Amino acid sequence: MMCSKGSLMTMVISIILCIMRRLGCKAVADATIEELKNKTELFVKEGNRAPSLAVVLVGHDAASETYVRKKAEAAEALGFLHFQYTFDEDVSEDRILSLIRDLNERDDVDGILVQLPLPGHISESRVIEAISPEKDVDGFSPVNSGRLLAGEDCFVPCTPKGIMKVLEHYGIGTAGKKAVIIGRSNIVGKPMAAILMQRGVDATVTVCHTKTPDLREYTLGADIIIVAAGHPGTIDESYVSEGAAVIDVGVNRIPDASREKGFRLSGDADYSSFRDRDVSITPVPGGIGVMTVAMLMSNTFEAAQRRAR
Amino acid sequence: MMCSKGSLMTMVISIILCIMRRLGCKAVADATIEELKNKTELFVKEGNRAPSLAVVLVGHDAASETYVRKKAEAAEALGFLHFQYTFDEDVSEDRILSLIRDLNERDDVDGILVQLPLPGHISESRVIEAISPEKDVDGFSPVNSGRLLAGEDCFVPCTPKGIMKVLEHYGIGTAGKKAVIIGRSNIVGKPMAAILMQRGVDATVTVCHTKTPDLREYTLGADIIIVAAGHPGTIDESYVSEGAAVIDVGVNRIPDASREKGFRLSGDADYSSFRDRDVSITPVPGGIGVMTVAMLMSNTFEAAQRRAR
Repeated sequence: MMCSKGSLMTMVISIILCIMRRLGCKAVADATIEELKNKTELFVKEGNRAPSLAVVLVGHDAASETYVRKKAEAAEALGFLHFQYTFDEDVSEDRILSLIRDLNERDDVDGILVQLPLPGHISESRVIEAISPEKDVDGFSPVNSGRLLAGEDCFVPCTPKGIMKVLEHYGIGTAGKKAVIIGRSNIVGKPMAAILMQRGVDATVTVCHTKTPDLREYTLGADIIIVAAGHPGTIDESYVSEGAAVIDVGVNRIPDASREKGFRLSGDADYSSFRDRDVSITPVPGGIGVMTVAMLMSNTFEAAQRRAR
Repeated sequence: MMCSKGSLMTMVISIILCIMRRLGCKAVADATIEELKNKTELFVKEGNRAPSLAVVLVGHDAASETYVRKKAEAAEALGFLHFQYTFDEDVSEDRILSLIRDLNERDDVDGILVQLPLPGHISESRVIEAISPEKDVDGFSPVNSGRLLAGEDCFVPCTPKGIMKVLEHYGIGTAGKKAVIIGRSNIVGKPMAAILMQRGVDATVTVCHTKTPDLREYTLGADIIIVAAGHPGTIDESYVSEGAAVIDVGVNRIPDASREKGFRLSGDADYSSFRDRDVSITPVPGGIGVMTVAMLMSNTFEAAQRRAR
């Protein structure tokens, strides 16, 4: 067996260390925000109005309120204009649709975001489809996701966009790699698959879900595993081969009386089980979640830039 | 080892026979057309105008001309109204866009189809995006493919729709099955993946392409292989396991001096190599190609029905 000094060294080190690599995302998100801040200052200096985001929140879901607050804070920190529209749970669909039509027309609004989920009596697809594609900074409208699937210029949904940024930051290549996505949501799984299969990204993508009989059959062969199933413990170290990267999109609230808030956050992967494995993995919290807000700001800046042109 | 009489019988028969199962599509397409004919007669009897299709053809590509002729013949056979717009290769993009805007407005047009490919100086995405989603019977516009990806009601692109019909006709289930798609075109591979991964269809889908290092690694484990690579001989029997179904979407013209036309048609799979294998496979010609035209007629009827409501 031929073996170069370098590769032998790498092998020995990896055997000796045999430890998990934590793909923290806070620094990546901070760097993105810092870059956006500079770009925004320049943009305003050039005589443009600051980028502006309108956020629509219906009801009082605790998680949704937290997300919306974080988005507002990020927008303010960047010097973006920020409008928030909050409605009680029982607001009519027509009221929301008419607000969106207004926001579509307004010259002082670059991006529109409707926080999901919406109450059952309001059609999410009708509301999302009403957002002008040019202001759809979440990238969930059909025009945007159709363009994404076709490989055309569009607003890339924030979580998949953040995942691509993290892969890039950590030098995890996608071309010719086997990517397995667990979960087929419209927000993460499907757009993620659409991105990874494009020319230039060039991963071979498999989308697994609740009807996949044997998940390990796919994950054990994968170079990159993106788990977005919405269930803690969807995978543990027995699902992952040495050298693979795990991107954990799950944000699950686990009841925990010892915490001040009464819960702790857990991803979809059993993080601690990877401790002694040669696996790279994003943590929860401090993982993909922080990227999502940064990418929303990035899309909002992009929307402002396009409108200014 | 426990073995019921029935399963033993099936096993013995499959071992004795050990022959390929030809999934001919002509009969499936004919049945679809017959059903559409009856529906159309009823639709007109109810006082509606016959469904109407506008076809736009640019240039003189031989294959495109053949496809457009077949579509015209099918429309006429069904009693559909049919408008054809033929342009020389050097027509401007503006001319095509303005025609499409006209057709979008016209009350006597239900479906609009622009035959692809277009000459290099015309942007296919701009032209396709100009077609009103309500008349986009090819299902290629972003709004339609975005809805398809999201699992919402839409015009399903004709070839993938035809493939689903053939699978259904031959009782080839998709739920919990491993589907491998070879090729990531916007016309077949990507929409096919979008359909197969939806809730209710429930296949575990992998999309392979030119950057997939080892195709067999995926195809040998697959229950359903959809090959839409556009290259003859992309797969042969060595890529396929016993019991699998192969859907061959390729239509390649192979020079053949012994034929009157100077060529013969070949799929992407090496059909004859499967002769002694327990594999189901669609032939070329007589396969998916004939389904595509039937599905276009089905979408046109659907468009007329929606407009009549």
